[in-house]
Amino acid sequence: MKSETFREIPGGICAPQGFAAAGVTAGIKKSMEPDLALIVSRTPCRAAGTFTTNAAKAAPVYFDLKQMHRPLLGIVANSGNANACTGREGLRNCEAMARLARQAVAGSGRPLGEFAVCSTGRIGVQLPMDRIESGIHEAAARLSETDTTAARAIMTTDTFSKEIAVEFSFGGKKVRIGGIAKGAGMIQPGMSPTGKRPALHATMLAFITTDADLPRPTLQNLLNRSIAQSFNRISVDGDMSTNDTVLFLANSQAKHKKATGKDLATFQAALNHLTLKLALMIVRDGEGISKVVTLKVTRAATQREAEWAVRAIGNSTLVKCSWYGEDPNWGRLYDAFGYSGARFDDAGFSIAYNDIFIVKNGVFCEKSLEIVRDIVKSSSFAITCDLGLGQRDAILYTTDLTEKYVELNKGE
Amino acid sequence: MKSETFREIPGGICAPQGFAAAGVTAGIKKSMEPDLALIVSRTPCRAAGTFTTNAAKAAPVYFDLKQMHRPLLGIVANSGNANACTGREGLRNCEAMARLARQAVAGSGRPLGEFAVCSTGRIGVQLPMDRIESGIHEAAARLSETDTTAARAIMTTDTFSKEIAVEFSFGGKKVRIGGIAKGAGMIQPGMSPTGKRPALHATMLAFITTDADLPRPTLQNLLNRSIAQSFNRISVDGDMSTNDTVLFLANSQAKHKKATGKDLATFQAALNHLTLKLALMIVRDGEGISKVVTLKVTRAATQREAEWAVRAIGNSTLVKCSWYGEDPNWGRLYDAFGYSGARFDDAGFSIAYNDIFIVKNGVFCEKSLEIVRDIVKSSSFAITCDLGLGQRDAILYTTDLTEKYVELNKGE
Repeated sequence: MKSETFREIPGGICAPQGFAAAGVTAGIKKSMEPDLALIVSRTPCRAAGTFTTNAAKAAPVYFDLKQMHRPLLGIVANSGNANACTGREGLRNCEAMARLARQAVAGSGRPLGEFAVCSTGRIGVQLPMDRIESGIHEAAARLSETDTTAARAIMTTDTFSKEIAVEFSFGGKKVRIGGIAKGAGMIQPGMSPTGKRPALHATMLAFITTDADLPRPTLQNLLNRSIAQSFNRISVDGDMSTNDTVLFLANSQAKHKKATGKDLATFQAALNHLTLKLALMIVRDGEGISKVVTLKVTRAATQREAEWAVRAIGNSTLVKCSWYGEDPNWGRLYDAFGYSGARFDDAGFSIAYNDIFIVKNGVFCEKSLEIVRDIVKSSSFAITCDLGLGQRDAILYTTDLTEKYVELNKGE
Repeated sequence: MKSETFREIPGGICAPQGFAAAGVTAGIKKSMEPDLALIVSRTPCRAAGTFTTNAAKAAPVYFDLKQMHRPLLGIVANSGNANACTGREGLRNCEAMARLARQAVAGSGRPLGEFAVCSTGRIGVQLPMDRIESGIHEAAARLSETDTTAARAIMTTDTFSKEIAVEFSFGGKKVRIGGIAKGAGMIQPGMSPTGKRPALHATMLAFITTDADLPRPTLQNLLNRSIAQSFNRISVDGDMSTNDTVLFLANSQAKHKKATGKDLATFQAALNHLTLKLALMIVRDGEGISKVVTLKVTRAATQREAEWAVRAIGNSTLVKCSWYGEDPNWGRLYDAFGYSGARFDDAGFSIAYNDIFIVKNGVFCEKSLEIVRDIVKSSSFAITCDLGLGQRDAILYTTDLTEKYVELNKGE
């Protein structure tokens, strides 16, 4: 938390000037919880985005990839249905959603503009377009610059809504970035700006707004760097979604002077803070979880091996069950980085819980066992697996696996 | 089941002539269940083996890799402790176990010979050598040619012991192969003859005996082919163990004539049958499971992609939870092969439960839904994901994921 360069403020996506939002119940979810969100800027925005690298991409991902190069007025998003594996009809429904949003918003006295579209929910079912249509009209009528309902309307199995905003000096003015996110299960995002690999591995969705005035390539670069250290570094269950999307809209309403290199560094720091906080909210809200674990692999021979090791450990059902059981079963960590494909030095590897070594240079530190037993009782702790070979590190924010996760994911 | 070329018979590893075994309680397990097994031949055997490709290999794996080129009199194995991540002391303990077995067996009036060593259980704890020693002496005194206790003594979380034997004509005589296995959790074996990759991905252990007279390279080739279609094609939880080992001992006691090509084909078919049946027993005894699923990926572009896809689907926690919940949530299968790295044809892929298509050429077959809902209620079913691109197939015998698995793996 660098309070000297930026500070957290309330307001979420509506904190930056010129943004309004609304969340309504369109009836897409059987539960009749809110399921349709609209985010709209006063003026067209430059847009950047990152998209799931899953080869099975939902229709809105394909749609948004094309929209990124156009000025966007806003985003329309629904929960309760992923619009994934829905073929041509799915793509036509995306186009219809964007068109309906454009018309409904223009009807409410705002300019006519393009929309990005996001969906999250069950795969393989066509969207109920009649409900979507009436939901969009209702949301357009309810748009508010102090909205907190959009963050609720994108939730699926989330138990709390996720929002944050930051403020800082930029080009001689106060500039703001706001964000909302959703995600609890099917969480191991691996996004890239093109939806193509290479990149790393919920549906997680995040929408970020700013009133800064930045060229599109700069906006995309700032977003890429922030995603690499936040959403692309979390895993609840190791399942990468068909729909993972982060959209970033900049509407230039802050009317600042040209940004200096120092301004851009501050912007990057603030954006990194905002995206990491949203990503950690998703981890903390992981389906059924009881623990958040910050897992580090250090001194791997290559970056790929560091990645393999950290994801093999963080996604091992046996490792995750032992975290749940508060059992410092480091043998399961050892087994997992062993099969990950990463090389390690048998006489040089170490494993530490917080700062306490349970294995040091390949030797079990039995005297640490009682302290480590206490560490694994906390609701969050860190584990470092030092492979003792090279200079490459990787981090993953992950969770335990509980009976409740299984119960939650048994049925629809 | 090719009853024309071989038939199943009782007797397990003692079915082939000249083999005796025993299982005893040495006190390695706190539960005081049987935990030490001894398998001994009347005369030295040629040996073949396959070993975990996990880079984190337990001491007995390193020890056995060296023993494979020597004539072996038998195998000594313990459960309750994996002797993994135990450094030099672990290796010395393997040597001591083999030496103790050699001496104890010779003391019981049998020839002096070499032993292979296997362990399974918790990682990172040194073996209690005093208990191992007295256990080995007790087992040597109890060796029996009608033993059924060795199969019990290698069990960990297994709920039933696993044994099988087959008999067939070979070089003009009746020849037999017998086998026992253990495994229920940490099950996604990937073994190779050298313990080195490439190979695919419990501890699972299996010991196979035969009274055939075969050169060592032939024995190893027969074993490799049988492992490739059995133990290396199962997964309960996606965790490859530090200890996975299959040992195959041939003591030449059947005194048959030189084998013909047809004899060897019969032997391979019988061995494939035996290893697949043992592997499927492990799947059926998977920790806490309620369903066995035969998962096939067909028409992948490359063999690697077929592998990636079948293991991504079979190890997805979301897919496994939906199987448990009897929810035909094919969207999760689609998501999983999508992120596996395998390519597929959006308009050419299909998904079938048993023989019923739920997606055909990219289109959801809504009318199949009720039939598929019934299929996923059975305790075992097949799923085929046809990627619609190439000609490569892969199969994986796998399971659902239940609250009971989580409960079983919470603690020690």
